[in-house]
Amino acid sequence: MPIHAYAAAAAGTPLEPFDYEPEPLGAHDIEVAVSHCGICHSDLHLIDDDWGNATYPLVPGHEIVGEVIAVGGGVGDHKVGDRVGVGWQCGSCGHCEHCVAGDEPFCADNRATCVGHFGGFADRVRVSGRFAFPIPAGLASEMAAPMLCGGATVYTPLRHFGVRPDHRVGVIGIGGLGHLAVQFARAWGCEVTAFSSSPDKEAGARELGAHHFVASRDGDALSAAAGSLDFILSTVNVSLDWEAYLNALRPKGHLCIVGAVPEALAIPVFPLMVGQRSVCGSVIAGRPMMREMLAFAARHQIAAHTEAMAMAEVNAALDRLRAGQVRHRVVLTR
Amino acid sequence: MPIHAYAAAAAGTPLEPFDYEPEPLGAHDIEVAVSHCGICHSDLHLIDDDWGNATYPLVPGHEIVGEVIAVGGGVGDHKVGDRVGVGWQCGSCGHCEHCVAGDEPFCADNRATCVGHFGGFADRVRVSGRFAFPIPAGLASEMAAPMLCGGATVYTPLRHFGVRPDHRVGVIGIGGLGHLAVQFARAWGCEVTAFSSSPDKEAGARELGAHHFVASRDGDALSAAAGSLDFILSTVNVSLDWEAYLNALRPKGHLCIVGAVPEALAIPVFPLMVGQRSVCGSVIAGRPMMREMLAFAARHQIAAHTEAMAMAEVNAALDRLRAGQVRHRVVLTR
Repeated sequence: MPIHAYAAAAAGTPLEPFDYEPEPLGAHDIEVAVSHCGICHSDLHLIDDDWGNATYPLVPGHEIVGEVIAVGGGVGDHKVGDRVGVGWQCGSCGHCEHCVAGDEPFCADNRATCVGHFGGFADRVRVSGRFAFPIPAGLASEMAAPMLCGGATVYTPLRHFGVRPDHRVGVIGIGGLGHLAVQFARAWGCEVTAFSSSPDKEAGARELGAHHFVASRDGDALSAAAGSLDFILSTVNVSLDWEAYLNALRPKGHLCIVGAVPEALAIPVFPLMVGQRSVCGSVIAGRPMMREMLAFAARHQIAAHTEAMAMAEVNAALDRLRAGQVRHRVVLTR
Repeated sequence: MPIHAYAAAAAGTPLEPFDYEPEPLGAHDIEVAVSHCGICHSDLHLIDDDWGNATYPLVPGHEIVGEVIAVGGGVGDHKVGDRVGVGWQCGSCGHCEHCVAGDEPFCADNRATCVGHFGGFADRVRVSGRFAFPIPAGLASEMAAPMLCGGATVYTPLRHFGVRPDHRVGVIGIGGLGHLAVQFARAWGCEVTAFSSSPDKEAGARELGAHHFVASRDGDALSAAAGSLDFILSTVNVSLDWEAYLNALRPKGHLCIVGAVPEALAIPVFPLMVGQRSVCGSVIAGRPMMREMLAFAARHQIAAHTEAMAMAEVNAALDRLRAGQVRHRVVLTR
């Protein structure tokens, strides 16, 4: 039975209904009936081929939640009827040093759900069962969908770079990623400062859990933050005054980039050296961290701000995202 | 009795004999009769006021080894006759969060041995006993002197950024810092690659313990190192092809800068993000790490390549350093 999807036929074109016959279900694969699929900014980048790696027809969608409707003969950890989620990554070799360490994103054979594979803007999707994650019972599907890429992207750096509950965390940009980052950092036990170029986001940031708000176009306010933060997560994809943010770090602090800034960062050496500071980056999560992120999100009721739209309205949803009108995540539903 | 020192009267001038009456010995101070003092590149930067923080008359010298000849009434851990070393830092408040954590370099009241204080190019020096470190018996004074700044500078990042014995470590620049870094990394258990713009340094680097050598002006050789290293320590103070070195890192790897590059680093974001890599920096060491570094250096017989010169020849020694003729550290002796 063909899968009914929405695809871009070429770079930058609107999505159109697209039916395809799935590959035979492999021994370790599962088929998922998609109930929800978040729209991530990287779906737009793929549709527009901004990164030069898109393959057409392109079926976007990598924040997938749905019900398992078929399992291959070698699948031991999923059964028909389970509710699972699938994120950016849908496959890896399974046996390299990175895979055995639970760092599957670094596998040389890592496969992306929407690159050379048809993604979640569809009624069904087939993926390796290894990259489908049980959704904890306490996490509603509409909340779970944005966790599978956005949540993973902001959770992983907290864990990997050793953020502790006594740390002071800054989040730059209070959008799709940032509004999740503020909630995760608050639930992590941290003192949280939101940085936004839009002063009107202050009330919303505080509702999400930020203790402090800095209007980042106010140079004096940014200077006043000097030496105050242990960890800054930058979720925006534009160049900023990186030196000012480095100086906002305390000794041993990290400035972590999760927004795909196209230009090289200009990083002065002295703030790195004298403060033993780091500039680092991160994307998505390996399988162990996906599981713990979902459990943490459920336990702390991390609540993405979502707007549900029917999958048939996908082009209208993409237009809203392009226009910056989404607060903060559209989740397509079927 | 006046202290007989060598001082620069103004920026960039040769040193001249300079006598001064020391401040009264404080309760927690000690006086050290200098037997050896290494010359570090940062002494040149101070003499020339490259960093804008020099104070004149300026007595350089912050790789000091000597014998304790007087102790203040509150000093409990040093006694007359002990052999001790003093490095870049000679004081701190002792009670801020950084001091109590053993991270004295981050103390807001940190004091430098040669800035607003007279350093080790002298027959004697007075410092807080807290910043004098016993020299292990197995470490000759001429070897110990370069450890007190150079050794600390390359040891601290190995420890702080979590380098493990199974890691692959690159060292950029095989000079005063780099030749120590290769030895420390080798003794740390690591697989060591030396990078130098001088192909004629290969034999020397291998003698120091490097397993591999990359002539860094050979773009193909640098490209061939892609994805091969967990940690790269850059000891040079010039701009390099930082993207190539980032790409030489494995996932989760660190590029650590300990050479004072004057220009901002141009750091592309994608190698940071997709590899979860970091660019970081470090200088000197806190008191706990000074002690463990010295013990480690003694146990592994880290052997600085030194040229002993009489302190009276200090200007000739500085000229040799300026001319790049030193392999790899001059130690002034009395």
